[in-house]
Amino acid sequence: MSKNSDHPIRAVAFDAYGTLFDVHSVMSLAEQICPGRGEALSMLWRQKQIEYSWLRAMSGRYKPFWEITRDALRFAVARLAPELAPAAEARLMNQYASLSAFPENIGALRELRALGLPLAILTNGNREMIEVSVRSSGMEGLFAHLLSSESVQTFKTRDAIYDLGPQALGVPVSDILFVSSNCWDAIAATWYGYRSFWINRTGAPLEVLDTAPHATGSLLTEVVSYARERLA
Amino acid sequence: MSKNSDHPIRAVAFDAYGTLFDVHSVMSLAEQICPGRGEALSMLWRQKQIEYSWLRAMSGRYKPFWEITRDALRFAVARLAPELAPAAEARLMNQYASLSAFPENIGALRELRALGLPLAILTNGNREMIEVSVRSSGMEGLFAHLLSSESVQTFKTRDAIYDLGPQALGVPVSDILFVSSNCWDAIAATWYGYRSFWINRTGAPLEVLDTAPHATGSLLTEVVSYARERLA
Repeated sequence: MSKNSDHPIRAVAFDAYGTLFDVHSVMSLAEQICPGRGEALSMLWRQKQIEYSWLRAMSGRYKPFWEITRDALRFAVARLAPELAPAAEARLMNQYASLSAFPENIGALRELRALGLPLAILTNGNREMIEVSVRSSGMEGLFAHLLSSESVQTFKTRDAIYDLGPQALGVPVSDILFVSSNCWDAIAATWYGYRSFWINRTGAPLEVLDTAPHATGSLLTEVVSYARERLA
Repeated sequence: MSKNSDHPIRAVAFDAYGTLFDVHSVMSLAEQICPGRGEALSMLWRQKQIEYSWLRAMSGRYKPFWEITRDALRFAVARLAPELAPAAEARLMNQYASLSAFPENIGALRELRALGLPLAILTNGNREMIEVSVRSSGMEGLFAHLLSSESVQTFKTRDAIYDLGPQALGVPVSDILFVSSNCWDAIAATWYGYRSFWINRTGAPLEVLDTAPHATGSLLTEVVSYARERLA
């Protein structure tokens, strides 16, 4: 199961959006606001959010992720629902600010804590955005570190943002389990040197990038059993 | 119309795929091979091709664009048409190797040449791939330079690949008109310092990246009139 079994797991770093926080609540609201196009709208919104973070990371054009999220929504609306009233944007953005946790997550995070593992969030989100999400999803107090793109002014998959994990957690990167529901993020973290766990909630095929995450599962609870077998 | 009217145009650099070469012939074949899903397959193929080039550019994992194109096709097939026979991959890749030019392109390129402007291709494609496409589309002899990702081992939107334009053409970047049908490419070239022209063939909305190309049109012939008004 592990490609890297010599290294014990000494800490766990989590991606935020889609991994800890369920962005599907946004889809329901998008469907209410824009019947028949809610799924397409929220998928294009998410795709553009990621694309814009990549383009800005590549070209050295940092901008807070909250603003990128709004830019991406504006593109998705222009493409798919140009008749939407401006108030709809505010409703969708508010929904994004108060995402809920996936149902199994808080229990799984508490179990990882009980194993003695320090936990971190390592996210493209800017600091305010991630603090609000942690509070609104009931995850306060579970994380030793909230590591944000804001401190390095760039986004995944640049090395500068993955640097934050070993710097803050104070252990070698190969001993940090990095958990993401975004396959590209799990693979780029593997390239960087993390041990990686891909949460594949939707049964998506593996991205074809010549690298696989060290482990894959469909729920955060599987991270607990994976880590328990590999403690220092 | 121009934001940058002090600078005359002294050379023109073109993106290749989607700008000079029509990738729609791939869509027709995809529809034959995979009825009802040809459009979705070719769109996901193209999207993944771009995504993989971005991820590899950001993470320093260069691989020839032809191989990335095959990787992207494999992902698209795994997601949308996992029952496809392996021979279908070869047929689709062959189609990609012999793309036709958009109908107006060769005439427009000849007119630009007649204005005395040196022309270049500046592309993510590797050298062999682009040479084959130039030959198979009847564009041989029109370009002074074929500038490929291969020489810098990275992809758009990294500065290293946009560097190739002024280096090869020997004029300041602000005097080079960069033409692309990919809005993100036209915008990133603008960030870099080119004068930019977005060929928006499909009426797509502008990407929301705080920057607009200097000019937009729907056909390559519009580049000719734009350049003619701004000669040195």
